[in-house]
Amino acid sequence: MFVARRVRSSVNFAKGTKAFSALAGVDSTKTIIHQTTHPKAKLEKEKLKFGTTFSDHMLEIDWDAEKGWGKPLIRPYGPLNIDPASSSLHYALQCFEGMKAYINDDGKIRLFRPDMNMARMNSSMERLFLPTFDSKEMIECIKQLVLLDKDWIPKGDGYSLYLRPTGISTHPHIGVSASSKAKVFVILSPVGPYYPEGFAPVKLYADDKYVRAWPGGTGNTKIGGNYGSTIMPQYEASKKGYSQILWLFGEEHFVTEVGTMNLFVYWINENGEKELVTAPLHRGDILPGVTRDSILQLTRGWGEFKVTEHTITMPSIVKAQKEGRLLEIFGSGTAAIISPVELINYNGVDINVPLDAEDGKSGKLTKRIWKEMTDIQYGRVEHPWSVVIN
Amino acid sequence: MFVARRVRSSVNFAKGTKAFSALAGVDSTKTIIHQTTHPKAKLEKEKLKFGTTFSDHMLEIDWDAEKGWGKPLIRPYGPLNIDPASSSLHYALQCFEGMKAYINDDGKIRLFRPDMNMARMNSSMERLFLPTFDSKEMIECIKQLVLLDKDWIPKGDGYSLYLRPTGISTHPHIGVSASSKAKVFVILSPVGPYYPEGFAPVKLYADDKYVRAWPGGTGNTKIGGNYGSTIMPQYEASKKGYSQILWLFGEEHFVTEVGTMNLFVYWINENGEKELVTAPLHRGDILPGVTRDSILQLTRGWGEFKVTEHTITMPSIVKAQKEGRLLEIFGSGTAAIISPVELINYNGVDINVPLDAEDGKSGKLTKRIWKEMTDIQYGRVEHPWSVVIN
Repeated sequence: MFVARRVRSSVNFAKGTKAFSALAGVDSTKTIIHQTTHPKAKLEKEKLKFGTTFSDHMLEIDWDAEKGWGKPLIRPYGPLNIDPASSSLHYALQCFEGMKAYINDDGKIRLFRPDMNMARMNSSMERLFLPTFDSKEMIECIKQLVLLDKDWIPKGDGYSLYLRPTGISTHPHIGVSASSKAKVFVILSPVGPYYPEGFAPVKLYADDKYVRAWPGGTGNTKIGGNYGSTIMPQYEASKKGYSQILWLFGEEHFVTEVGTMNLFVYWINENGEKELVTAPLHRGDILPGVTRDSILQLTRGWGEFKVTEHTITMPSIVKAQKEGRLLEIFGSGTAAIISPVELINYNGVDINVPLDAEDGKSGKLTKRIWKEMTDIQYGRVEHPWSVVIN
Repeated sequence: MFVARRVRSSVNFAKGTKAFSALAGVDSTKTIIHQTTHPKAKLEKEKLKFGTTFSDHMLEIDWDAEKGWGKPLIRPYGPLNIDPASSSLHYALQCFEGMKAYINDDGKIRLFRPDMNMARMNSSMERLFLPTFDSKEMIECIKQLVLLDKDWIPKGDGYSLYLRPTGISTHPHIGVSASSKAKVFVILSPVGPYYPEGFAPVKLYADDKYVRAWPGGTGNTKIGGNYGSTIMPQYEASKKGYSQILWLFGEEHFVTEVGTMNLFVYWINENGEKELVTAPLHRGDILPGVTRDSILQLTRGWGEFKVTEHTITMPSIVKAQKEGRLLEIFGSGTAAIISPVELINYNGVDINVPLDAEDGKSGKLTKRIWKEMTDIQYGRVEHPWSVVIN
C-alpha cells in the first residue's frame, strides 16, 4: 500500500496533476530485448576482480511523472546518455542494491531473498523522493536479464554473478527538487570468492573522527550519498595499517557498522550468557542488511545461545576482551557474506579478537554461519530464501 | 600546498605508482573549442525558470590517475556518456558549485569571488578523494566558456548567468574505492530574479525529525550527498504550508541552515546589544557560504553593530521574539543572494519575524545588505570581489 501512495505523492509534488491510477507500473511481460551482436570474451574466473568485469547485457526501465514506468529494455551493456544537468549527478539522487545469482553443479540458478533487496530499494527510492515500483515485476525483469546472461555466472564454490540494481534521477533540472524523470538499471558482474585462500581475518580501525550516519539521516537506506564520503576515512585507516573502518556513533562510541557491512559480536555477556549481538535498527543509522537479517533468523532458529539486536559500545567490547568474554567478531554483507575480524584498534590500542586455534583465520561460529549461509545460497541445502529462477 | 599533496595521495591510493610531479595539471592555454553549428534559440528572459535552460556550450576536463588532467574541452551542450558502473552513479562521488556571471549596461561581465568557489570545490573533491586542481587555471577555463556564451547572460537587474561547475567520478568500478578516473564539467544556465516582484518573505518549518548534517559528516562541503536527502523533508514541510526547512541540530535545537542557504539572525542579544549572528563553522555541519562570508565581511566593515558567528538555538529565537528583541531573519546563498524570513514554525507554533512596516516584505537591514551585495555583483559599485572578465 505504501508504495502506491508514495508514487502518487511523488507525482503530485512534481506535477500536481496525475493520479497514481493513471500511471503505468513496471510490466515484465512488455520487456524489449536487444541482444548483442558482439558478445564479449569472458575472463578466466580465477582472474575476476570484484566489480570490474560486466556481462553482455543490462536492463533499463525509464520513469516519468506523466506516464509512469516505461517498457523494460534489455540491451547490450554500454554507456548511459545522461544530461549534464541530471540531478543524479548533482544531488546524489541515486540508490542501489547488491544481490547475487548462484549456479550449482546441475545448472540450477538461484537468487538469495530478492524480495528483501527490492523492498529495501523501494525504501531508498522513497527516501530520495524517486518513484517506487512493484517488487515482483522488477524481480521478473531481473530474472530475464540473468537468464539471458546465464553463461556469465561463474561456476564453483565462492563464485557468483553480482547483480547491481541502481535507481537514478534523470531529470535535467539543477533546482533541488522532486524528480520528474528517473531510471532503474541493472548491471551484472561475475565475481570470485572474496577470500580466495579461505578466510582472511581483517584488522579494523575504530574511528571517532568521521561519522557514517546519524539519527534523522539516511543510514538506514542504500543511497549513494552514504558511500562516497567513506573513501577518504577508509584511506586514512589503510595508511595506518587497518583494512576497514569500524564506524562509531556518539560519545558512548556505539559500534554501528564495519566498512560497508553490518557487525556481529559473539561474547559471554555481563550476565554470563553466550550471546550473538548486532546493532539495532531503531536509531535509523544502520543498514538493514539482508545477510544481517538472515544470520539473525538462522541463529535464532538454532536456539543454542541468545541472539539480540541492541546497542554495543566499544568500551563494552574492550571490557569483555580484558575479562576473556569476547569470543568472535565478524562483519556481514552480500559481497563477502561473512568477514571475520581479528583485531580492532581503539583509542590507539590494538584489541585482539580470538580466532579458532586450528587455522587462525576465523572463529568457529563465524565459520559455521558462513557454511550454513553459503549452503543455502548455492542450493546445497534447500531453503525458501533461495529462489530457483530456471 | 595541500592541493598538490592530496592529488599525489589520491594517485598513490588508486595506483600506488605515479608521483604528483609526473601528472598534468589543468592548463587553460590548451583548451580545445568545438563550437556549435546549431545555436539554440534563446528564451525571452521573463520566461526563464531557475535551472531549466542551458546555454550553447559546456566545459569538460577529464582526469585519470596515470596522466592527470587532460586538455580542457569546450563543446556543444549535450549528454555525457557515462558507464553504468561509474561510481558517480553508485556512491555519489560528485560535488558542485554555484556561481554567477553578471553583465552591466556597458557590457562588462563580472564573476563574484570565483576563487572562493574554486577553493571550496577543491575541498569537496578532496573529501570525496577525487583529484584537486589549480583554481586559477580552472577559473581561466570557466572564463573562456562564459565569454564564448556571453550572449546567454541576460541583461537587467536581478538577471545573471548561473554557472554550475561539477566534479564527478567516471571510474567504472563498483567497489567502494578511490576513483582513478574523474571529470569536471561546467554548464551555464541563464536565470532571472529569484523574486521577480521584489522580495517575497518565506515561511520556515523548523524540523526536528530530519537532520541535514552531523559533526564528522560532510555538511561543510558541497557534495551531492548533502542534497538528495533533503527533498522528501522539504516536501513534507511544503504539505504543511511552509516553503523551506529550517535545519536544526542536537537536543538543544541549534539553528544551522535554511533549505540550501545559510541563516542570519539580527536581534538585540541578551546583553542588550544589536547583533547579527550566523551559525559557526567549527562543528563542520555548516556550508561555508560565499554569500555568508561576504555578508560577514561587509557588515563587520560597517562597524555599526556586533557581527558574530556562534551557536543560535531555536529556544533563544523564541525568547527574543517574545521579549521584542528579534529584529530580522534572512537566508543567504548564491541563487537568491538574500531571502527574508517572515515566520518560523517551531514545535507546532508559528513564530512571527518582524518585517519592515513600509512594504511588509523584508527587514530594513536585509534590504540594505541585499542592495550592497548586488551593487557589488553588478558592478554599480567597484569592489575587488567582483572580477571583470572581458
